[in-house]
Amino acid sequence: MNLADAGHDVMIVDNLSRRKIDIDLGVESLTPIATIGDRLKAWEQVGGKRIEFVLLDIAKEYDRLLALLRSEKPDAVVHFAEQRAAPYSMKSSATKRYTVDNNVNGTHNLLAAIVESGLDIHIVHLGTMGVYGYGSHRGATIPEGYLTVEVPQADGSRFTERILHPTDPGSVYHMTKTLDQLLFFYYNKNDSIRITDLHQGIVWGTNTRLTEKDPRLTNRFDYDGDYGTVLNRFLMQAAIGYPLTVHGTGGQTRAFIHIRDSVRCVQLALDNPPTSGEKVKIFNQMTESHRVADLAEKVAALTGAETNYQANPRKEAIDNDLIVDNRCFLELGLKPTTLDDGLLSEVVDVARRWADRCDRSRIPCLSAWTTRQAEAIAARP
Amino acid sequence: MNLADAGHDVMIVDNLSRRKIDIDLGVESLTPIATIGDRLKAWEQVGGKRIEFVLLDIAKEYDRLLALLRSEKPDAVVHFAEQRAAPYSMKSSATKRYTVDNNVNGTHNLLAAIVESGLDIHIVHLGTMGVYGYGSHRGATIPEGYLTVEVPQADGSRFTERILHPTDPGSVYHMTKTLDQLLFFYYNKNDSIRITDLHQGIVWGTNTRLTEKDPRLTNRFDYDGDYGTVLNRFLMQAAIGYPLTVHGTGGQTRAFIHIRDSVRCVQLALDNPPTSGEKVKIFNQMTESHRVADLAEKVAALTGAETNYQANPRKEAIDNDLIVDNRCFLELGLKPTTLDDGLLSEVVDVARRWADRCDRSRIPCLSAWTTRQAEAIAARP
Repeated sequence: MNLADAGHDVMIVDNLSRRKIDIDLGVESLTPIATIGDRLKAWEQVGGKRIEFVLLDIAKEYDRLLALLRSEKPDAVVHFAEQRAAPYSMKSSATKRYTVDNNVNGTHNLLAAIVESGLDIHIVHLGTMGVYGYGSHRGATIPEGYLTVEVPQADGSRFTERILHPTDPGSVYHMTKTLDQLLFFYYNKNDSIRITDLHQGIVWGTNTRLTEKDPRLTNRFDYDGDYGTVLNRFLMQAAIGYPLTVHGTGGQTRAFIHIRDSVRCVQLALDNPPTSGEKVKIFNQMTESHRVADLAEKVAALTGAETNYQANPRKEAIDNDLIVDNRCFLELGLKPTTLDDGLLSEVVDVARRWADRCDRSRIPCLSAWTTRQAEAIAARP
Repeated sequence: MNLADAGHDVMIVDNLSRRKIDIDLGVESLTPIATIGDRLKAWEQVGGKRIEFVLLDIAKEYDRLLALLRSEKPDAVVHFAEQRAAPYSMKSSATKRYTVDNNVNGTHNLLAAIVESGLDIHIVHLGTMGVYGYGSHRGATIPEGYLTVEVPQADGSRFTERILHPTDPGSVYHMTKTLDQLLFFYYNKNDSIRITDLHQGIVWGTNTRLTEKDPRLTNRFDYDGDYGTVLNRFLMQAAIGYPLTVHGTGGQTRAFIHIRDSVRCVQLALDNPPTSGEKVKIFNQMTESHRVADLAEKVAALTGAETNYQANPRKEAIDNDLIVDNRCFLELGLKPTTLDDGLLSEVVDVARRWADRCDRSRIPCLSAWTTRQAEAIAARP
C-alpha cells in the first residue's frame, strides 16, 4: 500500500503460506485479518491505487514465475517470500526442512528466472540482522554487510580485504538468510543481478498511516510463541494482564525497527537501486538496539505489568552487546521512529481492543532449539 | 570397496542419479560401467566383504532416510550425494535449480535426520577447493577451512578472529558447496553434529588397487564437456588423437589429487573423527597445484598431442596462483601420488583401450556461464 500510494504499479505475488501455517498451528493473528480479496477491495474503496494479486508459489512454480516476469517486466521485485520465524523453523524436522526448502528454492528460483528472462530487475530482499550472529567481539560495530579485515601471512606481511561479514546464525531460519547472502553474492558476480539485501531488526508496532484507513487493512499482530516478536508480545501481555515472558536473563540485545520505518526503508531501497555492475547493497534496516530485560522493564513501567523469567528455549549467548552501523538509511533520509515516541501505548491499545481474541495457551514459547532446551521447557513450573 | 577392504561394514545409499543424468545427456562413461547389482556381485566374487545397497533419494525421501539411520545406526555417513559438475550446473535454469535443490536438501535432510535420530554419527562430506575461489590475494596460502583475520576498529584498535575462509564460488555447483559449509557450521554449533568437510581438488586417474581386480569394478571415466575433468580429458584426448582443449589462456591454476589418494583420504578422515564438541574439521584434500596450460604441455610432451586454445565458456579469472595448505592429511600419513609417478601413461592406456566408445561430438564444453560466454562458444571456428 505504501508503494502504491507513492505512485508505483504494484502486484502482489503470494502463495498465502502465512495464513496456511496459522491453520496448521491452530492459532490466529490477534487482529482479525480479512481475506486477500477483501483487503484489496478495501484498499480501492479508500482511494488507493489498484493492486493486482497473483496466487503463486515461487519456490514451487518456476515456469509460472518466469512467465509472469516476462509478461509484467517489473522494474523491481520485493522478495518477502520466506518462512520468517525462528521458533517455527525449530519446531520439528518437518518445519526445519520446510524452511530450508522454501527459502532457498524461493530465492534461487527468483534469481534463475531473472537471469533466464534477460530482464534487468532489481531485487529488494528482506534479510535479517541475525545473519551476523550475536556473539561477536564486544565493542565492535556491525557494519552494513561488508567487513574490512587484515590477513596476516606466514612471512609477517599482511593484506587487506573487504569481505562479506562472517555469519553466525542462531536458528535454521536465520541460517537460510545466510544462504541467501551467498546466492545473492554469486548471481550478482556471475550475472550482474542488481540486489539490495535489507538486514532487518525485529519489527514492532502495528499500524502505518495507510493501514489505519480501514479496519480491513489492519496488519497481523502475532502474539503466539512461534511467530510473535518480543516487543509486541510484551505489549500484548501487558494489555491482557499476562506476566511478561523473559527467556533466560533477558541480557540478549537485539535491533528494532517500527513497522512505519520498515515500509519506508523498502521504499528508499527501491528508489536508490544499485547501479549496473555494483555489488550487492546491504543495509542494516534497524533504528535502535535494546536489551530484552530493559524492554520488559520499560513496558512494566508503562503498564504496571509483572515480569516472569523463564528457561530459554533457544541456544544463544546469555547476553551480548550490539552496536550497529545504520548510516545508509539515515543518509537516504530515514527519520527513525523510536520507542519513546508514544507508539508503545498505541500497541497496547490495539492489543486491549482485541484481547478477547487471545488464546493464552498459545503465548508460551514451546519450540526448543535442542533436546536439552526441550527438557528445560518441560521442567517449567 | 576401499573401506570394506579395510574391515568396515559398508552400505551404499544411492538414487543412481549420475547414471540417470547420462541418459538425459545421451552420453556414457568412456569405460563401460556395470549395473550396481553386477558391481556388488563382482566385488563379492573377487573376495570383497559384502556391501549392502539401498536405492534411496536422500534429498526427497526423508522418512526412509531417518528410518534407515535408526535401523542401521551407522558410526559415520560418507556424504557424496550431490550433483558434482560445474558445467552441468550451468547448462540451463533447470540444471541450476536441480543442483541447488538436490544438494541443499540432500545435505540438510541428512543433518536433520541425524538430529532427529539422536545418534552420534560422524559426517564425512565431499566439498571442493572451489569454495575458496581462485581470485584471492596473490602469494597468500589457502588454509584448511579457517582463516585468522584482524579486524581494525574505528578507534584504531583491532581484534583477532578465526573465521570460516570467505567463499567465492565460480559456478552454481560450487555455490552449493559454500551453502553446505554454512549448514554444517550451524548444525555443528547447535546440535554438536561431528562433521569433516573435505575440500577436494580435481580428481584424476582411473583405477585403484581394488577396481583393478575385475573389469566390472572399473571406475567411471567421464570425458564429455559437462562431467569430464581437465587432466583426464587431456589424457583421453591425447589417446584418441584429438587436440587438447585449453579454455582461455590456460593460466587457471587448480588443485589436483589422484583417485587413489582420494579414497585414502576418506578413510583417514573416518579413522580420525572430530571429538565431541569439536568444530567442523576442514581438510584440503589435494596433493599438488598446476596451471592448466602446464598440464597440457606435460601431456603434449608425453604423447605428442597438439593443443587447441578455445574461447572460455566459464566466467573466471584469466589466471591465478594457488598455494594450498594440506598439512592435515600429510600429518595423518597420506603419501601423495603425484603426476610424475607414471600414472599419466596408465590413464592414456585406459583411454586407448576404450577409444571406440568415445563420441567426439561430446568432447567440446558447450555449457556457458553467461549469455556473453554462450555467444563466444557459438563463434568458435
